[in-house]
Amino acid sequence: MAYIIPQIEILTEQFRKFPGIGRKTAQRMAFSLLEFSNEDVEAFANALVESKRAIKECSNCSNISCDDICSICSDPERRNDLIYVVEDTKALMSIERVREFKGTYHVLHGTISPMNGVGPDKLKIKELLERVASGKVKEVILATNPTADGETTAMYITKLLKPYGVKVSLLASGLPAGGDLEYADELTLHRALEGRREV
Amino acid sequence: MAYIIPQIEILTEQFRKFPGIGRKTAQRMAFSLLEFSNEDVEAFANALVESKRAIKECSNCSNISCDDICSICSDPERRNDLIYVVEDTKALMSIERVREFKGTYHVLHGTISPMNGVGPDKLKIKELLERVASGKVKEVILATNPTADGETTAMYITKLLKPYGVKVSLLASGLPAGGDLEYADELTLHRALEGRREV
Repeated sequence: MAYIIPQIEILTEQFRKFPGIGRKTAQRMAFSLLEFSNEDVEAFANALVESKRAIKECSNCSNISCDDICSICSDPERRNDLIYVVEDTKALMSIERVREFKGTYHVLHGTISPMNGVGPDKLKIKELLERVASGKVKEVILATNPTADGETTAMYITKLLKPYGVKVSLLASGLPAGGDLEYADELTLHRALEGRREV
Repeated sequence: MAYIIPQIEILTEQFRKFPGIGRKTAQRMAFSLLEFSNEDVEAFANALVESKRAIKECSNCSNISCDDICSICSDPERRNDLIYVVEDTKALMSIERVREFKGTYHVLHGTISPMNGVGPDKLKIKELLERVASGKVKEVILATNPTADGETTAMYITKLLKPYGVKVSLLASGLPAGGDLEYADELTLHRALEGRREV
């Protein structure tokens, strides 16, 4: 006897497709759409379709871009002999926020994840090797996340890069700035100790 | 130097229009849209526009409906001499979930809220009075939320209903089932005490 009209149900199901949006939030979003004007709903729908259509991948680094080559790869002040390998554009954006890195990126679009059926062929690894094979690259920094899948991916890529003789490095693992030893997990502590620096 | 392409920015702004969706969640939703297929994005956009277009208000109770008269008002087993007055369809759905109520509803679409510039004329109060004036209604249960605005609205409607001689009641206010006295606020405790029942 629960009252629900099919349109609200349809909208709720659509909003639920987004990660992190549960049933309650999705339903709230569906209801709040009723308070939008018809024009606002149409503007939203158009923005979805048009943005999705306009976004492509940079043919050099696989980053999302509205042009064939993204604004980072086409920036003459960026060093193309130094490549930061990241899992996705969100990681790239985090690194950009530091405003220190002057190299270019390579976006893998995921990590090797046997549990989820993602093998190396589904990632942009071939494209990375092609860039390195061109001979211009001096150093590759593997900045995948410090998770099991992220580290597996980094190890896999390290192995493939060996024959090219480029410098390969990993981001430091340890205590986060402002962190508290009391709340650090064992693996983080172990790595912080392992990577200790003499002062 | 933060890397952000305009399309992501446009999508983020669109998702931020929904209540309870902050900048971070909106951006995450914008990014996850990139992983949808083109067909899925189009299906989503169509669902938005079409659902919005199909949803109208029941001409009897102002509830959302896909027909002229909603399925509750047109149900012959529902008593139309008993009206539950609610703020919105979400409240209606909560009451329907209890599966006990056999009357019909009247959806106000908000509460009187001077702070937000919402006067009685913006709510479906006139329509409620018309239903009561028809002479068929015996009881009106005011089920607005126990908030300042909700209670103001209930008081306002009570006054208007007086001349019609119908029974007007309010939902009981008190401790929620499963609640804990320790965490109850003073107003709730005051009301629970005021509304105490002899056993």
